Amino acid sequence: MTGRPDEGPVLDVPAVADVEAAARRIASHVRHTPVVTSRGLDRRVGAEIAFKCENLQRAGAFKFRGAWNAVLSLPDNRAASGVCTHSSGNHGAAVALAARLRSIPAIVVMPAGAPTVKRRAVESFGAEIIECEPTLAAREATLAAVVGERGGRVIHPYDDFHVISGQGTVALELLDEPSPAPWCEPPTGPPDAIVVPVGGGGLLGGSALVAATRGCRIYGAEPAGADDAMRSLRAGRIIPVEAPDTIADGLRTSLGERNFAIIRRRVEDILTVSEDSIRAAMRLLWERTKLVVEPSGAVPLAALIEHGPPRGCSRIAVLLSGGNVDLDAVRF
Amino acid sequence: MTGRPDEGPVLDVPAVADVEAAARRIASHVRHTPVVTSRGLDRRVGAEIAFKCENLQRAGAFKFRGAWNAVLSLPDNRAASGVCTHSSGNHGAAVALAARLRSIPAIVVMPAGAPTVKRRAVESFGAEIIECEPTLAAREATLAAVVGERGGRVIHPYDDFHVISGQGTVALELLDEPSPAPWCEPPTGPPDAIVVPVGGGGLLGGSALVAATRGCRIYGAEPAGADDAMRSLRAGRIIPVEAPDTIADGLRTSLGERNFAIIRRRVEDILTVSEDSIRAAMRLLWERTKLVVEPSGAVPLAALIEHGPPRGCSRIAVLLSGGNVDLDAVRF
Repeated sequence: MTGRPDEGPVLDVPAVADVEAAARRIASHVRHTPVVTSRGLDRRVGAEIAFKCENLQRAGAFKFRGAWNAVLSLPDNRAASGVCTHSSGNHGAAVALAARLRSIPAIVVMPAGAPTVKRRAVESFGAEIIECEPTLAAREATLAAVVGERGGRVIHPYDDFHVISGQGTVALELLDEPSPAPWCEPPTGPPDAIVVPVGGGGLLGGSALVAATRGCRIYGAEPAGADDAMRSLRAGRIIPVEAPDTIADGLRTSLGERNFAIIRRRVEDILTVSEDSIRAAMRLLWERTKLVVEPSGAVPLAALIEHGPPRGCSRIAVLLSGGNVDLDAVRF
Repeated sequence: MTGRPDEGPVLDVPAVADVEAAARRIASHVRHTPVVTSRGLDRRVGAEIAFKCENLQRAGAFKFRGAWNAVLSLPDNRAASGVCTHSSGNHGAAVALAARLRSIPAIVVMPAGAPTVKRRAVESFGAEIIECEPTLAAREATLAAVVGERGGRVIHPYDDFHVISGQGTVALELLDEPSPAPWCEPPTGPPDAIVVPVGGGGLLGGSALVAATRGCRIYGAEPAGADDAMRSLRAGRIIPVEAPDTIADGLRTSLGERNFAIIRRRVEDILTVSEDSIRAAMRLLWERTKLVVEPSGAVPLAALIEHGPPRGCSRIAVLLSGGNVDLDAVRF
């Protein structure tokens, strides 16, 4: 599906049917992650919360859904020359794993100083790492040089039709086939709203396509120190983040064009949270659910605690986006 | 069942039928915890490992099984006056929760300086806390005074017929009704051996009763800094630990009489591990399974990494005993 004129430039923005197609395409290798609950956290928020555990997804984050959908969507002749991307985090590992599963080469451009645990993840999936200076300009220039020399298809971390479609499959599972964790009390019914962390907007955009067709409201949540999505939504145009300052390392990027085209039409609001709220929410999740959730994944719960549940919502789903934490750096 | 003369004093030591009865008794409020796997950890150990997630049990540890079995086994006239125990950790919270579920009062004697998170857990289940000096003598004296003044049945943390029977239900679930976590690859078959952390010996003793009747070998694992179980097994008599020195706060106690009576007959061996191994194993578990496991719960994996898999064992089950970590104190 292509974008409509009123969205500005004509973009290949997916629709919900593309998310449904992605779900069928990627099903065999994606984990159907569980939904956990915690009565203690319900009391804390003042609403019933269902946590969708994408920290238990392969490679430790929802990113694998989009990467795998993008890699699987390549025709054989395009796939043979491999894939490449730049990433300091979960997307790099997701692309590396997806490439390994399709038996094609992968190159991940990583900034110097990326956490060792993230490098090791990319290496463990057999991808080649090319290091560059830790600036966005250097990352993009290095990636362009790699593509020029070696060929290969670039898998953008969020501003990509197939990546957005793949990420939306999380919301599809959550709303159409929730799988309550057998050791928890199941939610008492479907959610009135979903709260999703927003960085580049792939997860929020893809999920918004689904929520809109299931009668479910959807909110984004982001750090106050990287509040470009909130400001972009208010302004009606993308306002890139300039100097992101947050421990939520997955949310330091600016919104993509395709993602914004969806978000501005489908998302109720973007909630911003303080760094203290993120740390407190992460701690609560570790203590109460016994799940390791990364700072970005704790941002939606932080938003619910800081702002209270959205008006009229008694059941809320939260996407725990990932669990890849640099344990050396954790200080509560 | 009572102990036999060759076990020394006549003790009320449970048999496997008592574990099976406990399983029926406690089923309605105990969580059937999942079994998770990690191919990365399998490669690390050189065997296939099934992790039984008692960190996802109610109150965050296997302790609830034994406490709930003991509380449920009290006749109404004994139960009415309530229950009490002394504990700096998981057993106190387990007794508090069990008492709340049976609507009877609970008193937990806690040493000064116990982690705030453990105090809060006990309080959150509505038990009364009485503080004492942080020595075993003070704990026992305070508890005796409480019983003298207020009445109430003492629930011993491990050297108790019903507590041991309750803890054994973990092994029963693991061997008779394993519930593979739906997001993981299931184990390829039943385990050749189980490795269990050992402190007072309730979990190891109860599990050993079950393993013996299921053709499964069983090993204990404990910190080298609290190696009384290993030394007791070698000596053929209980040798109490004198100055335990380990981060595995659940394993600082000495073996109970009833537990030792089972362990000496049923357990293959006790494996000891260094503090560095415990920390490394805990980190691996957090990183690979995304589960918060407390230091005591990481001791069996530490043993498998430090000693290698037991000879002839290609599939091994590990009991992740709990997930109650003082996050302020975590340093990797």
